[in-house]
Amino acid sequence: MTETTLLTFLQWIDLVGVLFNAVLGAVIGRAARLDVVGLVVLAIMSGLGGGMIRDVMLQSGPPIAITDWRYITAALLGALIVMIVRVEGRLWDRIYPPIDALALGTWAAAGSLKTLEAGFGVLPALMLGTITAVGGGFVRDMVLRRIPGVLGGNTLYATAALAASLVAVGSWYLHVPTIGSIAATAVGAALVLLARWRRLSLPVG
Amino acid sequence: MTETTLLTFLQWIDLVGVLFNAVLGAVIGRAARLDVVGLVVLAIMSGLGGGMIRDVMLQSGPPIAITDWRYITAALLGALIVMIVRVEGRLWDRIYPPIDALALGTWAAAGSLKTLEAGFGVLPALMLGTITAVGGGFVRDMVLRRIPGVLGGNTLYATAALAASLVAVGSWYLHVPTIGSIAATAVGAALVLLARWRRLSLPVG
Amino acid sequence: MTETTLLTFLQWIDLVGVLFNAVLGAVIGRAARLDVVGLVVLAIMSGLGGGMIRDVMLQSGPPIAITDWRYITAALLGALIVMIVRVEGRLWDRIYPPIDALALGTWAAAGSLKTLEAGFGVLPALMLGTITAVGGGFVRDMVLRRIPGVLGGNTLYATAALAASLVAVGSWYLHVPTIGSIAATAVGAALVLLARWRRLSLPVG
Repeated sequence: MTETTLLTFLQWIDLVGVLFNAVLGAVIGRAARLDVVGLVVLAIMSGLGGGMIRDVMLQSGPPIAITDWRYITAALLGALIVMIVRVEGRLWDRIYPPIDALALGTWAAAGSLKTLEAGFGVLPALMLGTITAVGGGFVRDMVLRRIPGVLGGNTLYATAALAASLVAVGSWYLHVPTIGSIAATAVGAALVLLARWRRLSLPVG
Repeated sequence: MTETTLLTFLQWIDLVGVLFNAVLGAVIGRAARLDVVGLVVLAIMSGLGGGMIRDVMLQSGPPIAITDWRYITAALLGALIVMIVRVEGRLWDRIYPPIDALALGTWAAAGSLKTLEAGFGVLPALMLGTITAVGGGFVRDMVLRRIPGVLGGNTLYATAALAASLVAVGSWYLHVPTIGSIAATAVGAALVLLARWRRLSLPVG
Repeated sequence: MTETTLLTFLQWIDLVGVLFNAVLGAVIGRAARLDVVGLVVLAIMSGLGGGMIRDVMLQSGPPIAITDWRYITAALLGALIVMIVRVEGRLWDRIYPPIDALALGTWAAAGSLKTLEAGFGVLPALMLGTITAVGGGFVRDMVLRRIPGVLGGNTLYATAALAASLVAVGSWYLHVPTIGSIAATAVGAALVLLARWRRLSLPVG
């Protein structure tokens, strides 16, 4: 694969991540008995929230979520799917975890590389990579009056996002960001799936 | 009326909307037994929150809420009124709904047109028009640990805001934004009042 | 002291404020039985949240919290301390209040002066000065599903922050911002300590 092909590939995973997290947001919204507008709002927050927070922090232009029409479209599509199809049952339980895990890894890689490319250092890159990956779910949980799962007891999302960001940042300094993005995505996804499978959690602070 | 007169007229509705929503925020704050600082904070969030979120997203300069002194002043005035006058009873029940409805319509129109003028497309315009109109109430509800009314069961605020945004966006592409703003305000306000009157709500998702 | 020495001095108080508020956030997170990632998130929010909101509003570049590595470092250090040391007991009860009070005053002074220097007027300066000082605690409380203490019944934080901002703004117009920063810090800190000591609170609105 050429570098352009790889980047295109990663951007499509990014968008698939938006779609799947939007579906997840809408599913959670339906479980909370929200109306259709509520589903759309939760889908947008879940799918686009993390990237929006990152872009607002970077202040290097409006969020990609509003400048690239594919992002809103993917989020709306996610909500639409949940309204039309009964997204649940065994098929969903099998499809969701790997895509969710891949999206988390890609988002962490994309967020940390975008931060480095905007001229910031390692610490901001790790912070914004992690925020990109977990910010949407954080906001979604807050809106539904839940203590965000990221803060404790869930499947190591934040830890996996931080690990993926570390790999991406390292690869950037080694001048192999494209391969690094894939490695970061793999590391982040593997950690999420491992944590889900083995029910890992961090010690209480 | 000339175009300038119309725009001035719409901006005043915008400010009256800030004032009335600030009053509403402070009234809700008093019901939650907050102290005077709490009232001011809720008044600012209710009156200015939606426009602030929009302006932070657009990244085309600081929020109008902090660059135009009339906005903070209107919000503070709203809080002051609630501290001095007992804002409740039949008069308030008759005055509030139409102004609230007009403000929602104007905010949706202003938000979507501002997004289009900043160079964005239809989807961002609809999204930010709606956020401008309902964002303040959303944040206010979150602060008071309520699931935002917009997400389900309230008087179709988000749907009305989206409809008003659609009218405004359409008018912009037809090169009649001024007339369109008035039409959008009318459509948004009519929907809110109709929903309130007939107790309409959306199906659970 | 020369002016540069004074400014350096104030910036160090600012950073010490980040450290201590990060410690406070992590202590609160541990009391809520969050895991170590939760502690770090709460430390970052408590220590850096107010300044981030201010900088995002001002739109004059990315938040200092991500451009100056000392800020993230101070917040992480705060979380680390709480993980290693048992931060509680009589020593903490004696050390925390004065530093917390000094940080609030410095943050209010720094926030309002930064707003004025960015070209805004008195009202935005007072609003953003206050937000800088109390915003982090506000967000931290929201995340933990508490109605933010600032809205009612706590030790006059918002009032003290507003008073400190008023002093700082006044000093800026009198062309003595450095002395004014110290005076503002002193006024804010004194009010917080007085309110804590005398258990002062505002009337319910």
